[in-house]
Order: sequence, then C-alpha cells, then structure tokens
Amino acid sequence: MTDGGTGRYARVRAAVLGTGLIGGSVLLRLAEAGLDVVGWDPDPATRERARLRGVLAPATLEETVVGRDLIFLCGPLPTLPSTLARMVELTAPGCVLTDVGSTKVEVAEAADRLGLGDRFVPGHPMAGAESAGLTAASPTLLAGAAWVLCPAAVATGPFRWLTGLLVEVFGARVVPMSAPAHDSVAALASHVPHLLAGALAGATQRAPLRDAVLALAAGSFSDGTRVAGTPAERTANMLLANRDRVLHELAEVRVFLDGLADALRADDAASLVARYAEARAARSALLDRRFASRSRRFDIDGEQRAEVTWLRELGGAGGHLTECRVDPDTVSYTAWLPVAD
Amino acid sequence: MTDGGTGRYARVRAAVLGTGLIGGSVLLRLAEAGLDVVGWDPDPATRERARLRGVLAPATLEETVVGRDLIFLCGPLPTLPSTLARMVELTAPGCVLTDVGSTKVEVAEAADRLGLGDRFVPGHPMAGAESAGLTAASPTLLAGAAWVLCPAAVATGPFRWLTGLLVEVFGARVVPMSAPAHDSVAALASHVPHLLAGALAGATQRAPLRDAVLALAAGSFSDGTRVAGTPAERTANMLLANRDRVLHELAEVRVFLDGLADALRADDAASLVARYAEARAARSALLDRRFASRSRRFDIDGEQRAEVTWLRELGGAGGHLTECRVDPDTVSYTAWLPVAD
Repeated sequence: MTDGGTGRYARVRAAVLGTGLIGGSVLLRLAEAGLDVVGWDPDPATRERARLRGVLAPATLEETVVGRDLIFLCGPLPTLPSTLARMVELTAPGCVLTDVGSTKVEVAEAADRLGLGDRFVPGHPMAGAESAGLTAASPTLLAGAAWVLCPAAVATGPFRWLTGLLVEVFGARVVPMSAPAHDSVAALASHVPHLLAGALAGATQRAPLRDAVLALAAGSFSDGTRVAGTPAERTANMLLANRDRVLHELAEVRVFLDGLADALRADDAASLVARYAEARAARSALLDRRFASRSRRFDIDGEQRAEVTWLRELGGAGGHLTECRVDPDTVSYTAWLPVAD
Repeated sequence: MTDGGTGRYARVRAAVLGTGLIGGSVLLRLAEAGLDVVGWDPDPATRERARLRGVLAPATLEETVVGRDLIFLCGPLPTLPSTLARMVELTAPGCVLTDVGSTKVEVAEAADRLGLGDRFVPGHPMAGAESAGLTAASPTLLAGAAWVLCPAAVATGPFRWLTGLLVEVFGARVVPMSAPAHDSVAALASHVPHLLAGALAGATQRAPLRDAVLALAAGSFSDGTRVAGTPAERTANMLLANRDRVLHELAEVRVFLDGLADALRADDAASLVARYAEARAARSALLDRRFASRSRRFDIDGEQRAEVTWLRELGGAGGHLTECRVDPDTVSYTAWLPVAD
C-alpha cells in the first residue's frame, strides 16, 4: 500500500453496490484512499448512513453506476446474477466488474452466460466478522487481507489491473485461483468451519445444562462457536451456493473426527496423541509459514494462456501476489510462495 | 479483588506443584498479591526459571510443601493421584489441597480413596491457551476467570475458605459444582470443541490443497482450529480422563451437525436458516447474558447439606459466587445467576 494509497489508481471512478459489512468496508477504504467512489444500497436508511459517514450515495442504481470504471458487487450471494444482468444494461464495455461473494463458481457461470466473462473478475476477500451491516464496516477491515481473484481463461487485462489496484489500495495479498479451485479450498477453509461452529452452538442451545455450559465457556468454546453468530441467512446462502464441495470436505473432516473418537473410545492414548500431533502440524504451518518471493514476467499479449496457468498454479500452491505492473510490452508480477515445512 | 489482593489472606503460606502454564500463572499471581508462596516443578530448569522470575523454588517436593496452609496441584492429569498420595505423607491435616485439572471425577475419587475428601477441593479455572510452560505463564492469565470448585457433600470449611481466597486474589467467579456435573458440562464447553478443532486441523493437514487452504484461512478456520495447537499429550489426557461424557456430548453435537448436513444436501434453505437461528441463540446468550445478584446466608454448622445443595444448584444453573464471608455463626455468599433470555 503506497502512502495515501492512490498512486496510479488516483483517477479511477469506482462504485460499490451493497454497502453492508464487506461492501461498506470496501467503500470506506476507497474513499479514504482518495478515489472517486460512490455507494448504493437497496435500503434507503443504509444509503443515508453512508452519507453520514461522508461518502456519496445516490438514490438509484442507475445514477450510481453511470460513467464508472470499476464496480464492486457486494450484495448477498443470491442477488448477484440479477445485479450482473443489470450491469449489462447499465455499464459500458470498458467497465470492470468484480464481486466479494464467498463462493465463485455460481457467479462466474452467471457472468459467462451474460457475456461478461471478459470484464467480470470474480473476487473474494478473506476477511469478515460475525457482525453485519454498514455500522460494523471499517476502512481497515480488509487491510492486508488475502483476496482471491479468478483470472479468466484468456483475457487477463481486467485481472491484472484489478490486482494492482487491490494491492495498492488495500495492501491485499491477491490469491489467483480458478473459480472451482476457490470453491473447493473455501469449503475447507471457511464453509465447513461454519458447519462445525453451528453444530457446537446448536447442540449447546439444546443442552439441558446450557447455562452451565455457557458459564464455563472459555477459549475453545468461544472461538469454536464464533461464526455461529453470523446472520443465519448469510451462512445458509454461502453453504447452499457451494453445497457439493462443502459436503465432500465435511466428509473428510468426519473421517478424521471418527478416528479421534475411535481412539478415545478404545482408550488408545498413543493413537490420540499421534492424531493430535498431525492436527497440530496444520496449526503450526498456519502460524509459522515462511514465504519466498519470485518475480515473473510475461509478454503482454503473446503468453496469456501461460500467464493464467502460472497464476492458477501459484494460488493452488498457497501463494499470492503483492505486485502487478503492466508496461507497454510486458506484465510483471511479484509472487510469494510458502517454503516447504 | 481488593487492592494488592492480600487482605485477610495475607498470611497464608501457599505452594504450587507443577509450574507450567496454569501452575506458573497461579504462582506468579500469588506472589504478586504478597502471599508467602513457593513453587516446585519436577524439571530443574523450570525451577531455575521460576527463581529468575523472582519466586522461591526449593529443590525438593518435601521442602516445598512443609508447613504450608494451601497447596495447588498443577501437574499433568495422570500425575495427580500419585501427587495426592504424597500429600498424605507430607502435609498436615489442616493443609487445604486443590488442583487445576480439566476433569474432576477421577481426581476427586482418588482423593476420597486416600482419605483426603475433607480437605481436597477439586478445582478448574476456565482459562488457558494453546501455549505451554512457565515461559507462557502470566500473573494475569487467570484474572477474573470462571473457576470451578467442587464442594464436598458435607464438610464445606475448605471450600468456603478457598472460595474467598480465589475471589480476593484472582478476582475469580467461583462456579460451585459437583465433580460429575463439572465433567458433563466441561465435555461440551471444552472437550468436544477440542475434538472438532482437531478434526478440522487434521483433515486440513491431510488435504491435497493444504497450503491453499491455509492461504485462505480467515477467522472461521483460524478460530476453529486454535486449540488444535495445544500440546497433543495434554489434550489426549484431558479427553481420556472424561471419555464417556465426551463421547456422549460428541454424539449430541453430531446430531445437530447431521441436521445441518441433511438440510444442506436437500437444498432446504428454510431448514438451514432455522437451525442456524437456533445455534445463534446460544451465541447471543453467551455474549449478552445478564446476571442478577442475590445474597444467601447459612448457619455455620447446622445447614451444611442445604448449603452444598444450594451451591451445586447455583453452578448447574450457570451461576457463580463473588463473595464468601465466614463469621462466627454464619457463612454468607454473594451469588450471581443469569437472567432468563
């Protein structure tokens, strides 16, 4: 993030549609960074709240998107296809579109059907909170976040440009992935954890000794149920939009859980310790990962398939981008890859 | 917690056996509060580290416990019965014993078998961290914690005295429970969350896309796996010492998880939302509980069964104590009970 966060993107005219927790945080950061940005929300009271926080919030979707270079679609997942359809009518072919939804295959397919595949870049910033709404939004919520972007199979112009902007304005670590790869990974990184949190909180709600359980709830319970506090519709939409992958990853988690339970039932201390040592290795890797950087340069026009292949492999290997610079003849990336344990 | 934390307990001579994360934190707080306290650990390097942190750490267990009024047993769960047996030999009948283990039935039964039931008060402070050792210990780790104490069926003198001390020195919210009630409640409040965290972290460790999952790990994954970073032996000991209750509560959590998965598989949005709304109610209750206080007074000698019954009912209802005062003829408590949602 450069000082002030503006730099080469200072003259971008952006819009944010849907100014809840994530959209509101995008909006507030873009405004803070000095971009020309407007927000819109279907709820008039939310629009008024945005104005009170110092950002322009026109009364209609049409006014909001006219003449914009970049539009963030930040409404609930089920609304994205219809909002994309409106964008076909309302925006010029040079306007780049992106979203912040927690699943990517459905919205990417909707964009392809609408002929938006060359300028819609599916996105997913990996941040959030169990809170909701513009009231909880903050210009720093997404600072430094891992931010998935899905490059199209060939046309990489909007992907390159948006990558540079997210790095510069949000300090994002951009993770390039295909939409299906994102949804598989997010199933285990986010969606299954929401199922486990729901199960723990739900079983507690039904427990005869609920109040005593809550009285003894220390770190493991409080952490393990936190995302069960997310608005129920938002969680349900997320899970339903990635159903098959979530159920597949849940089955894998159940296999490990069954192994733990079997070892416990058999009083097999050695097996329990071995399985927990295995689990702990993932935790250590999460906390202690080291990354090594590398630069990569591609011809601006002649290597687009190789560029996309490289980008997707980078994301699949746990890597991310912290720079994307487009020169007249070349595009150059700075990438970071985890060093093997 | 009164200023300085000493007050009527200033002249207590205490000892802490096992100065890891919890024992070390108990030791450091007792010393900070001005009590006469010594610590002991089987590891000579840990004893030396305790001395470097300014507390006395004799070379032998015998020297450590001689002439003490109160001894905290803070070693690993499997060591507690043999340490209790040593206490029979080494301590006077007026010396109060307590522990900080994460299960209570096994250690309470061991104390009863050893004839220590009238002066051993099983205890469990609900705090901790995935870290370990005296290096991670802190005099503030247990400040204001919920701290389970298990009053014996009749003799309540040591329970009353220790309750007052924990409130005064640690600002503890003392939760009175029978040992079996504690273990049932802790199964859901702590032990099952450790199983779920282990399953999520373990399945991730085995996943082909592990590094990509870790790259996208935001709050839900990071929170949901945190206690999988606990030393494996400590977690295994805890689960094994409460096996049947843990497996029972795990089955209840699985029932709720199956309900969520079935609703997801059936694309039943209404059912998913309803189940998450139920789960969210537990989360709201955890965060927004309000408590109402009441005072209760008992004859010092004539109402001990009624006193224990009242104490256990208080803990089972999610309540806690913030004062216990013993006068010549009466014992008086200040108790807090959650107000119904």
